[in-house]
Amino acid sequence: MALIVQKYGGTSVGNPERIRNVASRVKKYRDQGDQIVVVVSAMSGVTDNLIKLAKEIMPLPSEREMDMLLATGEQTTIALTAIALHALGVDAVSLTGAQAGIVTDGVHTKAKIQNITPRQVHGMLDSGKVVIVAGFQGQTLSGEITTLGRGGSDLTAIALAAALQADLCQIYTDVDGVYTADPRIVKGARKLPEIAYDEMLELASTGAKVMQSRSVEFAKKFGVIFEVRSSLNDNPGTIVKEETASMEDVVIRGVALDKNQAKITLVGVPDKPGVAARIFKALADSNVNVDMIVQNISHGGGAPATDLSFTVDKPDLLKATKVIDSLKGEAAYREVLSDENIGKLSIVGVGMRSHSGVAAKMFETLATEGVNIGMISTSEIKISVVINLDKAEQAMRAVHDVFIGK
Amino acid sequence: MALIVQKYGGTSVGNPERIRNVASRVKKYRDQGDQIVVVVSAMSGVTDNLIKLAKEIMPLPSEREMDMLLATGEQTTIALTAIALHALGVDAVSLTGAQAGIVTDGVHTKAKIQNITPRQVHGMLDSGKVVIVAGFQGQTLSGEITTLGRGGSDLTAIALAAALQADLCQIYTDVDGVYTADPRIVKGARKLPEIAYDEMLELASTGAKVMQSRSVEFAKKFGVIFEVRSSLNDNPGTIVKEETASMEDVVIRGVALDKNQAKITLVGVPDKPGVAARIFKALADSNVNVDMIVQNISHGGGAPATDLSFTVDKPDLLKATKVIDSLKGEAAYREVLSDENIGKLSIVGVGMRSHSGVAAKMFETLATEGVNIGMISTSEIKISVVINLDKAEQAMRAVHDVFIGK
Repeated sequence: MALIVQKYGGTSVGNPERIRNVASRVKKYRDQGDQIVVVVSAMSGVTDNLIKLAKEIMPLPSEREMDMLLATGEQTTIALTAIALHALGVDAVSLTGAQAGIVTDGVHTKAKIQNITPRQVHGMLDSGKVVIVAGFQGQTLSGEITTLGRGGSDLTAIALAAALQADLCQIYTDVDGVYTADPRIVKGARKLPEIAYDEMLELASTGAKVMQSRSVEFAKKFGVIFEVRSSLNDNPGTIVKEETASMEDVVIRGVALDKNQAKITLVGVPDKPGVAARIFKALADSNVNVDMIVQNISHGGGAPATDLSFTVDKPDLLKATKVIDSLKGEAAYREVLSDENIGKLSIVGVGMRSHSGVAAKMFETLATEGVNIGMISTSEIKISVVINLDKAEQAMRAVHDVFIGK
Repeated sequence: MALIVQKYGGTSVGNPERIRNVASRVKKYRDQGDQIVVVVSAMSGVTDNLIKLAKEIMPLPSEREMDMLLATGEQTTIALTAIALHALGVDAVSLTGAQAGIVTDGVHTKAKIQNITPRQVHGMLDSGKVVIVAGFQGQTLSGEITTLGRGGSDLTAIALAAALQADLCQIYTDVDGVYTADPRIVKGARKLPEIAYDEMLELASTGAKVMQSRSVEFAKKFGVIFEVRSSLNDNPGTIVKEETASMEDVVIRGVALDKNQAKITLVGVPDKPGVAARIFKALADSNVNVDMIVQNISHGGGAPATDLSFTVDKPDLLKATKVIDSLKGEAAYREVLSDENIGKLSIVGVGMRSHSGVAAKMFETLATEGVNIGMISTSEIKISVVINLDKAEQAMRAVHDVFIGK
């Protein structure tokens, strides 16, 4: 008898018909004698509707009240899922995050799980029930309702799996698993049977958003092995787990393309301490998320100066250039350039650690395709390049062909 | 500084615009320096939609899960109401029934309030906040979410007013108050400035459903004076309170007509002990609610026998006659008659206790109108008669004219 935590996202529980499908799948596992904990999100669209209602009343509603409001979404789904299981003759009971013992800090709309007291969940499992827990939500020690922010239901599932010492954690979603590349762009993309936490994290940070990074980080920290799989079929998904020796045999696990970045270059920044710090602090204060940062020697004459390039999310470009403009006096740069027509192409794999010449091979491939490289950034298991958006998909296919195969 | 509990029903909070109106009204009281507790229902239509969703999955869903599901309706409203108050610059905070300390028994979908620990509500009021509490819901001592059944939000408001020792409890609804008769039928009907609990209870039981009886009973038990008034205007409503000496000066407080009853007569029931008990037990076991019961000497010949008449809710008539048919052998009655074409006309007033000849005056009035009386039933403060439905409204107007005025 295994203890399995299954998480179903908003699309998987989007209407009564789909909730019935989820119940059928749960029953199948239950009939094999397993103990099942089901974590569900709000039905797709429900959270957005609630946000819309609130913003109709006030454009910037209180975060505490938004938590109170949004927590109803998952509470609705748990009740309906329990009822769907009853309809199949399965003994099931629903629990809010608070009832399931999920204790968080008091940072509303993006609370952190502090601990889980799964006494009640264990008790209900032991009495033969399927336990359905509201994802995305918890409660502070003083009884305030909180939510965990984006991707919060995944986090609930993984944290519960850790607290319950579950044998298996399945994240059901609308994709089949993690692929070597986006199959809509790369015809030869294939589903990965397994992937290391670190690879998953690098892929998430490079635009392949199967899951939010924080859930993967949590899983890594607590050693929770989980499977990303589809709620629409019975195909095995992708197992996400700690790196194993054999994983290093594969040089590159996946290729990702992020089209949502824009590049800003400050030309002729005075080459003295503190300038970069001032710029990036100002951007951070304005909530502009900076991704890649590269600094070169400037080609202009005069006093020692550098060129400073970085990328931001495309929707933040205007805000970022305004911040930069306001620093004109302090930072004393000569000129600002910005480019929205870029793509960030990344290759990720723990195999890079033990294989040399990976970067060279990537650059060579891009050169063969006639693709010019604008920026380069590397980590131990990732190489990212900024290239022209018009050639980005072609470059992605070429790199995938070379490292992973057609 | 007064402590006021205000309750707003589903229509009053039916959309963001109306929620803003509620917030404006609350602010008006707040600006006078009063402490305000607001109790809200689910937005109109929300509860019905949730029930529909559940029944799509299973026709008879579990009551525990229905409570989990329906409790989200009021939770949504409290958050939106708090946000609407924030938008007006009023410090406000929402609380679920559980957070407000409302402890109930474990009878799901019709839980009874066992006690209220208003520590948190008091604390928040003392810190200057308007406190918004979800009506209709509570929590058992073991942390199960419960709902209070029909009229539950009124009950929450009245119970909170009792626990908080509030100075005033206002029940906002879509009518202006309690009237001497239904103004749609009786042109001269007027709004009552005050009414005794017992009169309100008798009126509720005779078809004038401003509020569920249990809320009025609760208010009577704990001496909570409350006002029924409209959320659409600023007119004073009707104060419901303990009977005072001056109330007896008014003979008849109100006239009510219940068109939703049907009459069943068993002709020639053997006149021996236990027969009536058997009949009404069988009806009760089938959840048929019996209202008036009258027994006469039968006019047929043979062994000693009586005629037994009673009324049931019209929709239950078929079920009731089936139960009666199944008792044919046991109860040995001669014949069953049923009549759907009846109305129950009632006059209610604590003044009856000190005024004689009220019944005679009523019967005389009906006689003048040529209305035949089928059944009569009286309590200390009420006289009800069953009459032909076709003449019921005419009779109601005549009785109102005579006792209350044109």
